[in-house]
Amino acid sequence: MLEVSKKQLSAIEEEIAKEALQKAYKREISALIAHVRERANSLTEIEDLWYLHDLLSTKRYEIDGKYVYNFSTFVFDFARLVQEGWLTLEDLHGLPSTILSKISALTRI
Amino acid sequence: MLEVSKKQLSAIEEEIAKEALQKAYKREISALIAHVRERANSLTEIEDLWYLHDLLSTKRYEIDGKYVYNFSTFVFDFARLVQEGWLTLEDLHGLPSTILSKISALTRI
Repeated sequence: MLEVSKKQLSAIEEEIAKEALQKAYKREISALIAHVRERANSLTEIEDLWYLHDLLSTKRYEIDGKYVYNFSTFVFDFARLVQEGWLTLEDLHGLPSTILSKISALTRI
Repeated sequence: MLEVSKKQLSAIEEEIAKEALQKAYKREISALIAHVRERANSLTEIEDLWYLHDLLSTKRYEIDGKYVYNFSTFVFDFARLVQEGWLTLEDLHGLPSTILSKISALTRI
């Protein structure tokens, strides 16, 4: 079973997961801000503006749903963040090892 | 009648109108690029990113329809560009005076 139930996590473990989620969120936003700044500095054509618009549309939609703390998608959500480079397994240190192994396994798929 | 028919404009006058449209378009795009660059340089928060996204969404939609050369909305389109500051009446110099007066009158409404 890849689903995580509330009972599987202690209050401290839940705190660790939520903090990791916040950490990943901040990292992704910082990277996006840096990328937008860089692209904006080399803006010269209307196509560059619409590239920026498309990028922000995609990212806004993506980020909107991505950082919601959700038990039924917990393992997948964290595995995705690790795969995308916004988290390391180290950031999840303190979570139950059974859950960590599932996350780790999923990142290798 | 505020509508302009194709017969009311000579080939040269039509050329003047189309060039003015291009001029206004370039000015609006340049101003937008400058504004986006400026805002991007002071990006720090996620809200700043979404402000930029909202701005680009609005502008893209607006600009998309605004610079289409259209006889039935000719006078309104040019009056709007003058009102918004992307054109001056001077840029339209060479158009029939009857049309210029209509444009000029509309800009004062």
